[in-house]
Amino acid sequence: MKVIFNKTDLIDATNIVLKAVSSKTTMPILTCILIEAANEEIKMTGNDLELAIETKVSGIISEEGSIAVDAKLFSDIIRKLPEGNITIAQVGEVINISCEKSNFNIQGKNAEDFTRFPSIETNEYICISEFTLKDVVRQTIFSVAQNDNNKLMTGELFEIEGDNLKVVSLDGHRISIRNIKLRENYKQKKVIIPGKTLLEISRIIPGDSEKDVYIFFSDNYVVFEFGNTVVLSRLIEGEYFKIDKMLSSDYEVKMTVNKKDFLESIDRSLLLVRESDKKPIVMNISDEKLDVSMNTVIGTLKEEIEIKKEGKDLKIGFNPRFLSDALRAIDDEEVDIYMVNAKSPCFIRDNDNSYIYFILPISFIA
Amino acid sequence: MKVIFNKTDLIDATNIVLKAVSSKTTMPILTCILIEAANEEIKMTGNDLELAIETKVSGIISEEGSIAVDAKLFSDIIRKLPEGNITIAQVGEVINISCEKSNFNIQGKNAEDFTRFPSIETNEYICISEFTLKDVVRQTIFSVAQNDNNKLMTGELFEIEGDNLKVVSLDGHRISIRNIKLRENYKQKKVIIPGKTLLEISRIIPGDSEKDVYIFFSDNYVVFEFGNTVVLSRLIEGEYFKIDKMLSSDYEVKMTVNKKDFLESIDRSLLLVRESDKKPIVMNISDEKLDVSMNTVIGTLKEEIEIKKEGKDLKIGFNPRFLSDALRAIDDEEVDIYMVNAKSPCFIRDNDNSYIYFILPISFIA
Repeated sequence: MKVIFNKTDLIDATNIVLKAVSSKTTMPILTCILIEAANEEIKMTGNDLELAIETKVSGIISEEGSIAVDAKLFSDIIRKLPEGNITIAQVGEVINISCEKSNFNIQGKNAEDFTRFPSIETNEYICISEFTLKDVVRQTIFSVAQNDNNKLMTGELFEIEGDNLKVVSLDGHRISIRNIKLRENYKQKKVIIPGKTLLEISRIIPGDSEKDVYIFFSDNYVVFEFGNTVVLSRLIEGEYFKIDKMLSSDYEVKMTVNKKDFLESIDRSLLLVRESDKKPIVMNISDEKLDVSMNTVIGTLKEEIEIKKEGKDLKIGFNPRFLSDALRAIDDEEVDIYMVNAKSPCFIRDNDNSYIYFILPISFIA
Repeated sequence: MKVIFNKTDLIDATNIVLKAVSSKTTMPILTCILIEAANEEIKMTGNDLELAIETKVSGIISEEGSIAVDAKLFSDIIRKLPEGNITIAQVGEVINISCEKSNFNIQGKNAEDFTRFPSIETNEYICISEFTLKDVVRQTIFSVAQNDNNKLMTGELFEIEGDNLKVVSLDGHRISIRNIKLRENYKQKKVIIPGKTLLEISRIIPGDSEKDVYIFFSDNYVVFEFGNTVVLSRLIEGEYFKIDKMLSSDYEVKMTVNKKDFLESIDRSLLLVRESDKKPIVMNISDEKLDVSMNTVIGTLKEEIEIKKEGKDLKIGFNPRFLSDALRAIDDEEVDIYMVNAKSPCFIRDNDNSYIYFILPISFIA
């Protein structure tokens, strides 16, 4: 193999496939990326066996071939090379990387040892803008469960019905729901996509609102196609939680609050909470006023926030991190929070349910 | 105590004194800063017993007093408060921090337990610009020894003779020397200032070339005064190394090289060196050309750099990190490197010796 790249193109493509390279692994081949030059096309691939990313990169092929190379080292080297075209040549399992008067030789690995992309049937799909996909991941990923105790909770539900895409994540204490209007009607579909896949995608997708992502579904896989890049991930198998019966539009208190004021107040209360602590922020809701308080071994905080309120007065406690996560995911200036009593969840939602954040309260000493 | 601050003033002052607060200590009082309001002056102090920083901050004193407060928590709280004036009131050992409708109560500590600034005689001093002090620390601090095996090597020599300030640091493998022309003549003086002190000073000093720093010397202490801030540090006791006999202006090879090209090449060679490795970068100096090579288990690098050369050809090896550190500290576009043979140190210096970087070579397999 011998290929000549423009430096910027090569760095961009490497950054993309790096997202599917394991840093912690006992299998050296998983720390590699694959470079393939064949049929007038240069492809780079990363594959950590859960997630695989393949991207095309432009360049001049003067000799076809393929080789795997340590991803971190390769990435560091090309970044530090002088400005100019970068030539990558393979001599046996040695990779020669040269640019101007700089000449590196490093050990490569046999391309045959690299796990290829499985080829899969993909006749079902949806199409959304890069911006929408990136945004919906940001708005829901935080309430995916952090540990593997329940595999289903580590993924997000993508449910398509007609022209609606519903994205759901939950971790046992809270549920995040986003409803997105699609541009056309699609066949009914329900899949659970690993949170890690969505996080990595949201990192590599440029987020252009004018550019589209095609999401293809097979029985076991989901494939994202955008720009020159294809991302493939296993789906999580199983039946997702039935959340509809947990959602209710009944309420006894509706509070409308300025999002920024409320969020800043919660962030301040977090200064008094140690990482392992589960101290509630106590909200005392009365007419036109929300009293917020936090009381820990470190100190106390009391704040007063202006609100609009409908319904009865209520004193209720929440995990401040959960409130903070949900509020950060909302772009509205004012948010409506619906509650029933101190033992029932609150719902932060807009009028047309484009977002619903469900958070369970925690008990507090009155 | 009750004092009202402008938020920005209070944050700036806190950031300064934070530099003298221990994060790792078993004595809780050392994690605190002291706030004192007396005689129409508000002072904040940090003191980790090696380094003490005191700064004045403007504010309105409505009740005099003093209290110590956990530095990290205090800093986090004032940063997160809403825009507006911040009132700090002391009620017993509780500190009340309030701003707009936000109201924190945290535990303080008795000001009496805080270690005060020692008062010291300071009749000898020099005066240099903030910019010069900040710059000379940057240009020398890297060759201070990282471990305590030899206490003298953890400090920098500041030697004043007439209108010349010589700053020296060394770690047994290299020596960095800077000579600075002072604006007037001062009394002869030689002190060893702890590297840590200089590093922290260089972080808090604004670096204005129009503003001056006064450096006062006593037998055991050095005091830096600039703006509203006073920094006090113990000196390192002992006789500094006699370096003059190690310096020689004889040479058999003089190489002139573009600093940026050489530095980039060295940085690339470092990609092949693991942290614990002591692999040399081998420089093969011939007429008009420098061949640089690095050979490790990770791979090999060969580069060619244009140079101007006087004297014989030479092949010599250096720790690439030491070369890189010295070159980074030099602002010239072209540097002159003087060598004798493969076993003798190189000197990177300019014509008037405003800087001299001495680096010992390391042996290599030819």
